[in-house]
Amino acid sequence: MALTLYWGSGSPYSWRVLLALEHKRLTYDSQMLHVDKQEHQSPPMLKMNPRGTLPVLKDGDYVVFESVAVLYYLDVKYPGIPIFGSSPEEAGVIMRVICEFQNYAEPALSKIVSAMFSEDEEHSFEELTDAMHVIGREARTIEGRLSKESWIVGANYSAADMVIFPWIQLLRRALDKSTAAELGRRFLPMETNYPALARWINRIESLPGYSRAYPPHWHAHTSTL
Amino acid sequence: MALTLYWGSGSPYSWRVLLALEHKRLTYDSQMLHVDKQEHQSPPMLKMNPRGTLPVLKDGDYVVFESVAVLYYLDVKYPGIPIFGSSPEEAGVIMRVICEFQNYAEPALSKIVSAMFSEDEEHSFEELTDAMHVIGREARTIEGRLSKESWIVGANYSAADMVIFPWIQLLRRALDKSTAAELGRRFLPMETNYPALARWINRIESLPGYSRAYPPHWHAHTSTL
Repeated sequence: MALTLYWGSGSPYSWRVLLALEHKRLTYDSQMLHVDKQEHQSPPMLKMNPRGTLPVLKDGDYVVFESVAVLYYLDVKYPGIPIFGSSPEEAGVIMRVICEFQNYAEPALSKIVSAMFSEDEEHSFEELTDAMHVIGREARTIEGRLSKESWIVGANYSAADMVIFPWIQLLRRALDKSTAAELGRRFLPMETNYPALARWINRIESLPGYSRAYPPHWHAHTSTL
Repeated sequence: MALTLYWGSGSPYSWRVLLALEHKRLTYDSQMLHVDKQEHQSPPMLKMNPRGTLPVLKDGDYVVFESVAVLYYLDVKYPGIPIFGSSPEEAGVIMRVICEFQNYAEPALSKIVSAMFSEDEEHSFEELTDAMHVIGREARTIEGRLSKESWIVGANYSAADMVIFPWIQLLRRALDKSTAAELGRRFLPMETNYPALARWINRIESLPGYSRAYPPHWHAHTSTL
């Protein structure tokens, strides 16, 4: 079967799947779509995913979207290098950490990132400070996990790392903006505030294939999302 | 291993896991906690789940929480009667439908339910009407699936049905309130507006063990959540 991934540069959801495909050493046709040109909303894309979101994975005639579902499909279909653990107990913890991240951290992360990158979003400073408090609390939990192990769940790089990592990179990019100086004060530099998380980022950045998953437009020192 | 489920009456997240345990014909110790008495926040419960949320599943010494993670753990550990499909392709669709439901329908459902059951929640009528529009759109998609098949994904009752069903029951309970008459006008009665969904509800209500998963306090004709 031929795998094709349709993805958007800088989308944390797309990035997750790229990390998984690289880690599983799968050969895939990498189709980066230009979201600014609405390429993800073209008729052939909407035929595959009526919601018009990215990423979309095509495997022969089969199509799957929603990033966690894509990770899960890849793991069931290509179990050679597992990303949802190697026991039911590990699988449960990995999925639990992913659910917790989605339910508790993602809404706050999304608020900070959209406030920093979308000019038409309106958030009060108080609302953003609250979001940073939530992020800080969740980051401390992850810091605790990473101070005991190399990866977020157990001894191996897993879907939990892949789900969380792109959002952390996106958050750092958002907090690097001069307008975010006050908000990011207790988060950056990560080496000081979250040393285990900082080492984990380096660890992922050193993985083979990392550069193929890195958002291309971030190289250009642009300040867009 | 002895399975124990700690759950709350009327919590859609707890209900999902009860449906899964019943469908998988697993023997479990059913521990209903009184949320109004803060039993879910007791020290032994917080030791198992620091977030103090329900459901919590204990399997011997192993603990897992977050409803979708519990369903997933149960399926990997006790695969006899599968709830995440019997092929990678089916697994992908089931997880995709669950993710879509969580990302698109749940926030709107949560808004309607909390507006109807929590007096301290403030929502404008416009906000609630918008939420009902979202729910209507998502319900039409599910209605489309159920007009072709008996279950939400494919030929078998799956985790997708278990994730979605309790929220639909909760929504009906919310819209049955006299204060919700205007909001529910285009949703209820479901037999007219969503006939395939109404038949699907009957189908689940007829499953063996359904009564053991039904929120006990709903029998008492109370009007609380």
